[in-house]
Amino acid sequence: MKSTMKALVYGGEGKIELKEVPLPKIKKPTDAIIKVTKTTICGTDLGIIKGKVPTVQPGTILGHEGVGVVEEVGGSVRNFKKGDHVIISCITSDGSCEYCKKGMYAHCEDGGWILGNLINGTQAEYVCIPHADNSLHPIPAGADEEALVMLSDILPTGYEIGVLNGNVKPGDTIAIVGSGPIGMSALLTSQFYSPAKIYMIDLDDNRLATAKKFGATEVINSGSENAIQRIMDETKDGVDVAIEAVGLPATFDICQQIVRPGGRVAVVGVHGHSVDLQLQKLWIQNITLTTGLVSTNTTPMLLKNVVSGKLEPKKLITHRFMLDDILLAYDVFGDAGKEKAMKVIIESESVNKLQTATAEKLEEMAV
Amino acid sequence: MKSTMKALVYGGEGKIELKEVPLPKIKKPTDAIIKVTKTTICGTDLGIIKGKVPTVQPGTILGHEGVGVVEEVGGSVRNFKKGDHVIISCITSDGSCEYCKKGMYAHCEDGGWILGNLINGTQAEYVCIPHADNSLHPIPAGADEEALVMLSDILPTGYEIGVLNGNVKPGDTIAIVGSGPIGMSALLTSQFYSPAKIYMIDLDDNRLATAKKFGATEVINSGSENAIQRIMDETKDGVDVAIEAVGLPATFDICQQIVRPGGRVAVVGVHGHSVDLQLQKLWIQNITLTTGLVSTNTTPMLLKNVVSGKLEPKKLITHRFMLDDILLAYDVFGDAGKEKAMKVIIESESVNKLQTATAEKLEEMAV
Amino acid sequence: MKSTMKALVYGGEGKIELKEVPLPKIKKPTDAIIKVTKTTICGTDLGIIKGKVPTVQPGTILGHEGVGVVEEVGGSVRNFKKGDHVIISCITSDGSCEYCKKGMYAHCEDGGWILGNLINGTQAEYVCIPHADNSLHPIPAGADEEALVMLSDILPTGYEIGVLNGNVKPGDTIAIVGSGPIGMSALLTSQFYSPAKIYMIDLDDNRLATAKKFGATEVINSGSENAIQRIMDETKDGVDVAIEAVGLPATFDICQQIVRPGGRVAVVGVHGHSVDLQLQKLWIQNITLTTGLVSTNTTPMLLKNVVSGKLEPKKLITHRFMLDDILLAYDVFGDAGKEKAMKVIIESESVNKLQTATAEKLEEMAV
Amino acid sequence: MKSTMKALVYGGEGKIELKEVPLPKIKKPTDAIIKVTKTTICGTDLGIIKGKVPTVQPGTILGHEGVGVVEEVGGSVRNFKKGDHVIISCITSDGSCEYCKKGMYAHCEDGGWILGNLINGTQAEYVCIPHADNSLHPIPAGADEEALVMLSDILPTGYEIGVLNGNVKPGDTIAIVGSGPIGMSALLTSQFYSPAKIYMIDLDDNRLATAKKFGATEVINSGSENAIQRIMDETKDGVDVAIEAVGLPATFDICQQIVRPGGRVAVVGVHGHSVDLQLQKLWIQNITLTTGLVSTNTTPMLLKNVVSGKLEPKKLITHRFMLDDILLAYDVFGDAGKEKAMKVIIESESVNKLQTATAEKLEEMAV
Repeated sequence: MKSTMKALVYGGEGKIELKEVPLPKIKKPTDAIIKVTKTTICGTDLGIIKGKVPTVQPGTILGHEGVGVVEEVGGSVRNFKKGDHVIISCITSDGSCEYCKKGMYAHCEDGGWILGNLINGTQAEYVCIPHADNSLHPIPAGADEEALVMLSDILPTGYEIGVLNGNVKPGDTIAIVGSGPIGMSALLTSQFYSPAKIYMIDLDDNRLATAKKFGATEVINSGSENAIQRIMDETKDGVDVAIEAVGLPATFDICQQIVRPGGRVAVVGVHGHSVDLQLQKLWIQNITLTTGLVSTNTTPMLLKNVVSGKLEPKKLITHRFMLDDILLAYDVFGDAGKEKAMKVIIESESVNKLQTATAEKLEEMAV
Repeated sequence: MKSTMKALVYGGEGKIELKEVPLPKIKKPTDAIIKVTKTTICGTDLGIIKGKVPTVQPGTILGHEGVGVVEEVGGSVRNFKKGDHVIISCITSDGSCEYCKKGMYAHCEDGGWILGNLINGTQAEYVCIPHADNSLHPIPAGADEEALVMLSDILPTGYEIGVLNGNVKPGDTIAIVGSGPIGMSALLTSQFYSPAKIYMIDLDDNRLATAKKFGATEVINSGSENAIQRIMDETKDGVDVAIEAVGLPATFDICQQIVRPGGRVAVVGVHGHSVDLQLQKLWIQNITLTTGLVSTNTTPMLLKNVVSGKLEPKKLITHRFMLDDILLAYDVFGDAGKEKAMKVIIESESVNKLQTATAEKLEEMAV
Repeated sequence: MKSTMKALVYGGEGKIELKEVPLPKIKKPTDAIIKVTKTTICGTDLGIIKGKVPTVQPGTILGHEGVGVVEEVGGSVRNFKKGDHVIISCITSDGSCEYCKKGMYAHCEDGGWILGNLINGTQAEYVCIPHADNSLHPIPAGADEEALVMLSDILPTGYEIGVLNGNVKPGDTIAIVGSGPIGMSALLTSQFYSPAKIYMIDLDDNRLATAKKFGATEVINSGSENAIQRIMDETKDGVDVAIEAVGLPATFDICQQIVRPGGRVAVVGVHGHSVDLQLQKLWIQNITLTTGLVSTNTTPMLLKNVVSGKLEPKKLITHRFMLDDILLAYDVFGDAGKEKAMKVIIESESVNKLQTATAEKLEEMAV
Repeated sequence: MKSTMKALVYGGEGKIELKEVPLPKIKKPTDAIIKVTKTTICGTDLGIIKGKVPTVQPGTILGHEGVGVVEEVGGSVRNFKKGDHVIISCITSDGSCEYCKKGMYAHCEDGGWILGNLINGTQAEYVCIPHADNSLHPIPAGADEEALVMLSDILPTGYEIGVLNGNVKPGDTIAIVGSGPIGMSALLTSQFYSPAKIYMIDLDDNRLATAKKFGATEVINSGSENAIQRIMDETKDGVDVAIEAVGLPATFDICQQIVRPGGRVAVVGVHGHSVDLQLQKLWIQNITLTTGLVSTNTTPMLLKNVVSGKLEPKKLITHRFMLDDILLAYDVFGDAGKEKAMKVIIESESVNKLQTATAEKLEEMAV
């Protein structure tokens, strides 16, 4: 192990830099140091760079997703040892506070979403994970680790905050507004519950075509047709569940207008502004609206389904880069529409050089 | 039975009149005619008179609450016969449509809230109740029928839409915003679940004093102190459940600001306007927000508790009037703060003349 | 309409007879007369003939499953009219008693399972259905009515009492003990919830092969290998859900021995004897055990899935007979192992003579 | 701190001895050493002495309940420090295994019920508690610590395994079979949910009289009257919830015979033998039966209610002894009927000598 490493460091609004920084060290007996083999970029990371997440201080290494290999563990870590392959959960949890005892790891009093936010994150060669026993998941031998990067955040988020909060049931008619990575994760995982009809709504025809391949039974480009009108025409009283996966007032509004009496609106999108809730119509409609940050309680179940092949999150990966090219990866992911990008994989150079594209090959890489 | 009866008839915005109208008749084999012995006025009735409920046509008899005696039943009514004493549910339900089969009587495809809205209501000597088998509840011999008027609407509303939707649990800290009849009903019925702490918030010190007698552990006059600040100071992260029982943007806002991560906001108030939902703060908070019209599924359970003395809805009754004096009753109820009114009982003359006050005695009647 | 009809009449233990009986008549305004186009035989009918269901009086027409066409309705039937095609639910419900209001139609105070038990049933040309509004389901135009015979009883039973009571969840490992019609129904409908692994256990290799085709991931012939040992070896601590679909002490015992801590045993089989519950082992295991008669609340949802093609109950049908040949149908169904029979369809002669086999063609008919 | 301590040591079937043993030591960084100030005896301890719990090896210090003061903590214990007053949970949990992540601490893969079973317990001056962060609860300043001994095991057991598994709801009619400490705990905590009627069934009139004081609305001495007959006569179809709190086939049988359709049987008693489950009657009754070992998830909520005075577990304490007199305490608790004993408190000498009775005063001590 060398004494410095490459890492993507936030430099204040609008600034990120790939640079050499000191290696992380074990500070508490519950910490573990992980050699990051693959990471990715989240929509939230783009928000941080735009200055929208004031808790992130300049100097912080970004990233809250990834898989890797345990390099070193603190004295009281029991579940992992050097050499273990692990999924890094985007949520850190101590397992013993009031919220953790309720399974609400998102609100852990000594954790929650801190990675790449309050502490250094995963877009680096190494990362220090607090409360390692509760914040890592073992990877079974032979699993496709690239696919498992999707289990750090987006798949459990789409599933827990979209599908489970939305209480999707067999035979339901559901609508997912937004077909980015989170909407697609909700789409893939909603099918665990066999809804009868899945509407996917977006402005991007390319993404809608992908949604169709991933199991949407109906797709609506809300730029070219009136999504609300069409859904109300085609259903009896609206949808049983509307999943908001964008984070804008306009997409929230679609959801509240298409939900049927007794239905549910599950908000998954990261909202920067308040929305206008039409209580004058909804008070009488027996609606349930939920919000939430993922707790990743379902990661073991999702992992089992990825391993068995029932769930194929790899389908979400459109581009691959070396860590040296991470700024280029940010460009591609930041211009997802034009680049036809969904999720991008960032690999550590030493691990798997040959399979990874360089910038020149960008065009062929696009799905 | 005579051929006309007294009834309070809506005459368009701002107008109500007590007048002689034809007696109701059985139109369908599932109908029943009820002689109304006691009825009451709901906040919604005041809203109708202000023109806020456009579905109510001039000429409609108002009122959706009351108890009475069965006068006549249609050919297929099985559960009731002439002479039976009954509670009239504010919700009419056919028991066989898609919504009824889910127990969502509020959304019955041939019913829901239609009484004193789409069809003639209970503020009259007689009323015709559709789908009588599903829309009436038998009164056990010896029960205090006056108290049971509270079971037509406000008690099940406070309980189902406030307490059950809010999922109040033993040990919870809850807040009820609004101490009118609905808020008080939520207060009384929340105690079925033994919350540890109940905050009651209102602008009226008289009502707050009553709330304290009814079981609130803390009362806050939000006109004279900052309710949000105080609750956030006195609790760890806010309340487990906030029940909105007013129907205004300002009271909704209190609720969304005092609810803790993982908590619930149960909207019971009738909202005339949209509200500003602070999704930019709440998206990360794992909040559940519910709305709803009562289905009255819990009326039998509440009835059992009134009969056993565990629940004393009679405490909500502050004034009593004869049907001849119903306009006066509207005046008193419409100026509830000054009159210290909560729920007013309107009695049919023939039934119980002696116990009922006349207008001259109004002052002494106030609790 | 003629004045008599053919019907299969129970004649006391061991005796059934196909004979001419009077046509049923409307007795209450909530009744409907249905011309039965297709019916089937249930394992429970075999039990009745063996004298195991003492509530069935000699002279009763058997059968509680079927589809047909409405011939006549009583004066207060609102949801159906002459000519409507309907599924007959095995459960009759009035929609207004205490149990119906809780959705527990199985325990309706004026219904429940009475068809072919306390009142005449469906193995006849016509049947009178009480509380028609709640006890029939409309068949959408163009649906395959033969497949829908499976919705009268076995599919909702397998789903409600096996899958829903068992609380099957995505990723679960489940075991179904018994691969007769009910076990197969549980197998088909459990897949709505995407369990990771489904063990099917039976003594009949032919049925196990069918189970494999229907989605079982593992099959065990408990006659030739130790089912308990194998499951405990292949799982961590046992299965999440064990569904008992036979009705014998030995099959119940398998279930209680393979269920993991926190797991569920859903009893669907009709049990004629008590069983030995190993509380000395299970008291510490946080097990939930459920029993139940179907309420058919899920029939509309299942119907939607049959129409959309997601659920194919037709796969369960192995033989077809005319009503004239119903005694032969009983013989075949009663010797299901040898005949490789699962569900047999009995058709009314007038409806669809050509598609139906006669006895001579029995051999070719077997799937 | 001296080098040896007094402890009650199991010596094989029929044998216990109070003797000097070495002090416990921290072995893992997650351990804590607690100075036990008050402990108690559980019915399970009597079972151990009778040789009924084969996992307990001779040489083991008994006891899994108690309160105390933290003497020393391992290097990774974060939630507690020397001097903290704590409740010792009867369940040890690591907070990070598959079962703990589901909140099923009873089945923790590195814990569960091990105290006074697989490892040394609390009937001693000191005890070593593994996974201290998850297995201890802080005692608020000023709380009555004696009452809190009831929170180690019996109150959460009665509540979680009886009341919550039984799903007691407002308005329910429930029956508790057995009025020992566990039955009484179920009785006290069931009242959080306001059941309408609580039957308490036992053979001991003294205990039944106490149950009446604690909130039972009806008591039945099943030795002198037919409990099943009386309950079926007085209720419509039986009770909503039957809680089995003895652990014998006969008491289980009462439960299965008095539960109504759709009702629940919650088994809390420790069963040494299998029972005869009447599936031939129950298969049609939509019954749910549960078993379970406590996970103590509810201890914080119960603690809050003890501190606020809403729950008074001190009422269960009938006798007090010094640790030196623990053999006498076993005699008294072992002959509970004659001694009118419910729960006995064992105090460490140094803490509170004056308040504690000596053997001579036994007679006056009995409630």
